[in-house]
Amino acid sequence: MKNNQFMKKWLEEIEQYLVSMIDGLPSHQEKLQSAMKHVVVGGGKRIRPMLVLASAQVCGAKPKDVLPAACALEMIHTYSLIHDDLPGMDDDSMRRGKPTIHVLYDEATAILSGDAFLTIAFEAICQTKEVEAKNLVQMVQALSKASGARGMIAGQMLDIASEEQSLTLEELKQIHQEKTGKLIQVAMQIGCLAGNPSNSTKEALEDFATHYGLAFQIQNDLQDVLWDSQKTGKETGKDQALEKNTYPSLMGIAGAKLALEEEVMACQKSIEQLPLTSDEQLEAAQFLADSLQYLTI
Amino acid sequence: MKNNQFMKKWLEEIEQYLVSMIDGLPSHQEKLQSAMKHVVVGGGKRIRPMLVLASAQVCGAKPKDVLPAACALEMIHTYSLIHDDLPGMDDDSMRRGKPTIHVLYDEATAILSGDAFLTIAFEAICQTKEVEAKNLVQMVQALSKASGARGMIAGQMLDIASEEQSLTLEELKQIHQEKTGKLIQVAMQIGCLAGNPSNSTKEALEDFATHYGLAFQIQNDLQDVLWDSQKTGKETGKDQALEKNTYPSLMGIAGAKLALEEEVMACQKSIEQLPLTSDEQLEAAQFLADSLQYLTI
Repeated sequence: MKNNQFMKKWLEEIEQYLVSMIDGLPSHQEKLQSAMKHVVVGGGKRIRPMLVLASAQVCGAKPKDVLPAACALEMIHTYSLIHDDLPGMDDDSMRRGKPTIHVLYDEATAILSGDAFLTIAFEAICQTKEVEAKNLVQMVQALSKASGARGMIAGQMLDIASEEQSLTLEELKQIHQEKTGKLIQVAMQIGCLAGNPSNSTKEALEDFATHYGLAFQIQNDLQDVLWDSQKTGKETGKDQALEKNTYPSLMGIAGAKLALEEEVMACQKSIEQLPLTSDEQLEAAQFLADSLQYLTI
Repeated sequence: MKNNQFMKKWLEEIEQYLVSMIDGLPSHQEKLQSAMKHVVVGGGKRIRPMLVLASAQVCGAKPKDVLPAACALEMIHTYSLIHDDLPGMDDDSMRRGKPTIHVLYDEATAILSGDAFLTIAFEAICQTKEVEAKNLVQMVQALSKASGARGMIAGQMLDIASEEQSLTLEELKQIHQEKTGKLIQVAMQIGCLAGNPSNSTKEALEDFATHYGLAFQIQNDLQDVLWDSQKTGKETGKDQALEKNTYPSLMGIAGAKLALEEEVMACQKSIEQLPLTSDEQLEAAQFLADSLQYLTI
């Protein structure tokens, strides 16, 4: 993965854009800026913005032109982590091996930093200037639906409500589709809106996103059971302690591993369906293929 | 105020639109829907959406066409109240004479309801279909700037930081400009973006918004000192107990009352500058004039 050319090109640009948005806030907001940077600088694999850039490239757009919208996805993801970690939610004191904002600063700063990331994501979309206004409006609409009470927030509510219940596999899938899947899907959708994809390209990217989202969550659940805290930077065994419903708890570890493999294979098939012509498109598709390495266990 | 024709026409439509957006959320989200309705139904004077509708009418647009964007302002305002009331922020147990969400439901539901209102506001803007896409993009941009870390969130951070400090009047004004003023200003701006105002109309509306925002906050501070909890539905004397900086504490009660009168007079002058031709425009301007009744003490 480290040698992937597409990733090498864009990872640094994503971080620079995120930092520039925070640096661009009013100068009297040092505490807010510092809290926002604490959580966003050097953190995470940037998978959502990378998926926007790769799908945009596959759809014939220039990744550079869609960088702000790509970063909007990372901002939404970041806000969700900050609010999930709050004492009134999961009450996590560590994230990616670092103390969470409410521990390092205070709870009000954590709430407001989350709100700030959520709000600035929509400002970032509007900075995607090379994209036509009507497509920008569709991006805003898609992002608000996927991350709001029709998507991620709905999933979060269901997740909390299910903590002391036993779920069926179908119910678990619904939670994950809303909590994680829709944001992955909207990343690919935003990439499509930046370009001019054929129907078959669009369908293949949609397919990829659906299976990627599922694989992502199965792998996350498996990691939580199998890995130690040094590797993930989170306290592990936590989901089990909370009696959360996870793929391993519903399917067994072997069953969850098999389901993960199947989803990854479905992702590979979707990539094979993409009609790729230019070197740039091939490079972006290679990123999609290589990013499946993240989903191994 | 109760007899204002423009308000009579639109108050009910605003509530209906807000309720329809909540009802339109997925049916398995009863708890979230119920928490969101608890805080938004029958609550508040809807001053921000009414200002959008009135300024749109003054600018030659049809208020009906801009109703979703107007309601977006109420959604942003509502989210800010929910998050401000959280235990990690002001820890208020009552709002508008009713228990706050974290008291009636739980803290996670309060955090997520606030997030949901903030997110759905941008979806609402995109539903403002009679407005050109390029103007919708400007609305999204203006709203995210005014409510995010360049506006309301910045003001909230400053407000918290100033709790144990003595501020100058200039510093207090800056906090209020960010915390309250910018959202009032963006309401008028969004109204302008829905229509086709002349420069003089635009300037007069901007002027109105600036003075209205200031008057709004001075009056709020005065109420907090002078009124009892029955009237405001909030616990009073709280700001003083927290040693917050308020207009009355910096200017004295008489000084604050005088400042309030001056701001209200400046609002009246701005309304007189508006070039009004149609009956509908006169009616909308009458609403702006009548709404100054809210700012008396």
